Amino acid sequence: MNLVVDADRVLADLKELHERHGGPGGARRLAWSEDWLAAREWFQGKLDEIDGIAVDRDEAGNVWVELPGANDDGGFVIVGSHLDAVPSGGWLDGCLGVLAALGVLRALAESGEAPPVTVRLVDWADEEGARFGRSLLGSSAAAGTLDPDDVRDLKDAQGTRLEDALAACDVDLDNAGASRSRLEGALAYLELHIEQGPVLLDTGRLASAVSGTFGDERYLITFKGQSAHAGSTPMRLRKDSLAAAATAALEIREVGIRHDGVCTVGAMTADPGVITAIAGSTEMMLDLRHLDAGTLATMLEENLDACRRAAEKFDCEVSHRRVFGATPTPFHPKLIQIAREAVDAAGGGDGDPIPSGPLHDATEVGRLVPTVMIFAQSDPPLSHTAIEDSPEDALRVAIEAYGRTVGGALEAVANGELQEARA
Amino acid sequence: MNLVVDADRVLADLKELHERHGGPGGARRLAWSEDWLAAREWFQGKLDEIDGIAVDRDEAGNVWVELPGANDDGGFVIVGSHLDAVPSGGWLDGCLGVLAALGVLRALAESGEAPPVTVRLVDWADEEGARFGRSLLGSSAAAGTLDPDDVRDLKDAQGTRLEDALAACDVDLDNAGASRSRLEGALAYLELHIEQGPVLLDTGRLASAVSGTFGDERYLITFKGQSAHAGSTPMRLRKDSLAAAATAALEIREVGIRHDGVCTVGAMTADPGVITAIAGSTEMMLDLRHLDAGTLATMLEENLDACRRAAEKFDCEVSHRRVFGATPTPFHPKLIQIAREAVDAAGGGDGDPIPSGPLHDATEVGRLVPTVMIFAQSDPPLSHTAIEDSPEDALRVAIEAYGRTVGGALEAVANGELQEARA
Repeated sequence: MNLVVDADRVLADLKELHERHGGPGGARRLAWSEDWLAAREWFQGKLDEIDGIAVDRDEAGNVWVELPGANDDGGFVIVGSHLDAVPSGGWLDGCLGVLAALGVLRALAESGEAPPVTVRLVDWADEEGARFGRSLLGSSAAAGTLDPDDVRDLKDAQGTRLEDALAACDVDLDNAGASRSRLEGALAYLELHIEQGPVLLDTGRLASAVSGTFGDERYLITFKGQSAHAGSTPMRLRKDSLAAAATAALEIREVGIRHDGVCTVGAMTADPGVITAIAGSTEMMLDLRHLDAGTLATMLEENLDACRRAAEKFDCEVSHRRVFGATPTPFHPKLIQIAREAVDAAGGGDGDPIPSGPLHDATEVGRLVPTVMIFAQSDPPLSHTAIEDSPEDALRVAIEAYGRTVGGALEAVANGELQEARA
Repeated sequence: MNLVVDADRVLADLKELHERHGGPGGARRLAWSEDWLAAREWFQGKLDEIDGIAVDRDEAGNVWVELPGANDDGGFVIVGSHLDAVPSGGWLDGCLGVLAALGVLRALAESGEAPPVTVRLVDWADEEGARFGRSLLGSSAAAGTLDPDDVRDLKDAQGTRLEDALAACDVDLDNAGASRSRLEGALAYLELHIEQGPVLLDTGRLASAVSGTFGDERYLITFKGQSAHAGSTPMRLRKDSLAAAATAALEIREVGIRHDGVCTVGAMTADPGVITAIAGSTEMMLDLRHLDAGTLATMLEENLDACRRAAEKFDCEVSHRRVFGATPTPFHPKLIQIAREAVDAAGGGDGDPIPSGPLHDATEVGRLVPTVMIFAQSDPPLSHTAIEDSPEDALRVAIEAYGRTVGGALEAVANGELQEARA
């Protein structure tokens, strides 16, 4: 079915949201804050204008909007993203997907005809994790991967516990997992987002289907040498932990290049960290990502091996601690094909689907439900900053492609194609 | 002349000072503090036991003790070091030299015979610079290299200004330079210190003559790339400032090795410095030292060049800021020879004189006055820590060698050898 989303209206909604709940200093929609609740209130106002829908909130704080379909056998397609933002974030991250999904609901409601199956819009709670450091909170609760005990005592900058912040928003952390019922019967999950990276800009593409989200391993690596006086210690008698870390970081970079993944050393903290002393110990932050789980494991092994060799070279010891891990989520082949064709039909060209380096709610949902995303070009290729932006033609192509993808998915569901592919 | 210092008594004094003004937590003799003034009071008590000496304080807060010589033509030899210490510092840094010099005065006073020329002991004020970040304060005032305007507004951790802290100790910063008169007529400056490094330990030597103090250049180097998402930015599209810094740091290390100097990158601070972001900018601390001014300049040039090449390789920009500079102070050839023979005669062996990486008061005085130092082995080869230590046999050899060096210098002065060498 040809589902035409009114891109003008989506863009107008985005600008209105940014005027009211963002501004020159960037987004003001930090999850579990008054600001965020106010932005959701504004969104509720937009929903109120649509006939025939029902709105409620699940046990994890995710907002759900239901537009009933012609077939009431319980199957449904999900559209959505998240309204929450990092402090001083951009005007597109998350809200583009929610407001394009709103455009989908509007188009369906205004068509005068029920969709073949029920369509649900979701506004996930706390995708960013900006306040407590735990990303994808609402979607991981719904996907069954959130352990309340892992996050209960996380504290924000003011010392407020995560559990208490949720309770203040009437969310009982211990009951958040009950939101899992919301994904029972889901036939597809479709999310539009900005790329937040330079790949589409670099190749001059306005939008693309997304092949999946990278698996992600995060480690803190500690090199221990011997702190000593920078003047009195000859080069040959040093155990320089920072030289070991530097050596490892450069080899880690090569590992990322070799495997067509990404390996990032984002910081090295030397102790004592003064200009007149050799660094006795250095802690290095390591993040590595790949779409293929096996390659990710190989990259990790090679990175840790590089650390061991670098430590040995500089007479240091090395230890590591895993601080985060997420397996890759490859998206659904049939949905990727639909999204790719939709991008092409919308004027975005027939480029290969690109993987997503950042995690998204689709990472969590995609573990259980056939999923695909569409990315709009980012220019500048940055996100989580007030200067985040996308060219208007990229947004228009991406919004149109998103509508076409939802239409294509509904058609595939009606034809029984998606259920087959899922099996 | 054979000048025999009572090493037992020097060691007993060191232990008494450590019991009273140090302890298990380390030294408590931070310059311009009540603790430091109390340690100086204790030292005054020791001086009170010696007959025939005069004690006063110069305009920079340095304490001077004069033992008149047989020849009163105004020439004199200086012995000494500093009583001040870094917080939680060791029991030997600085005070070994002051208390060995006290042993020299005692030996001379108890010999019943006036030395050929006047001998002055000095306890330099604020060698460490631990409170305000400016080392060698008292000795640089006496050497004429202290500009009050450079240090006036330096603040300690509590926000106290240097000028005010000195005033509280009755030192008028603007008049500190008048202390320069104390070096007029100085024929030699002789200082005993612990090595604070691993060279003597590594070669099994207990003590050594010192050939001079390294020149020292300190720079902050800033690499500017582009902060971006660690997941969404392919390796080939990165401008990774930390990778540039790591590359530069490893090449800088090679520069130090190649020129037989020391080059130290003690810290790299990445911004934003989070595990999920490429470092947009990285600030690197660089310290480089050499005994030869020309080689130091070459090393600096090669280091800055390495930074430029590393920046270019990773599509970054680089800038640098000089934060400190000190020219090398080669010591006096005749005094080095005397000290070397003294170490040998004291049982320390006839090893080559070693350079000093750390700066000392001798660095400042040596610009104007024929100077030499003697080092005692450090084991562990660390300083500025409560675990700083030296084997007792190393201290005994070094104290004896120091006495012999003072004796040799007085003899050389009496024979007119030193004046000749100075010219």
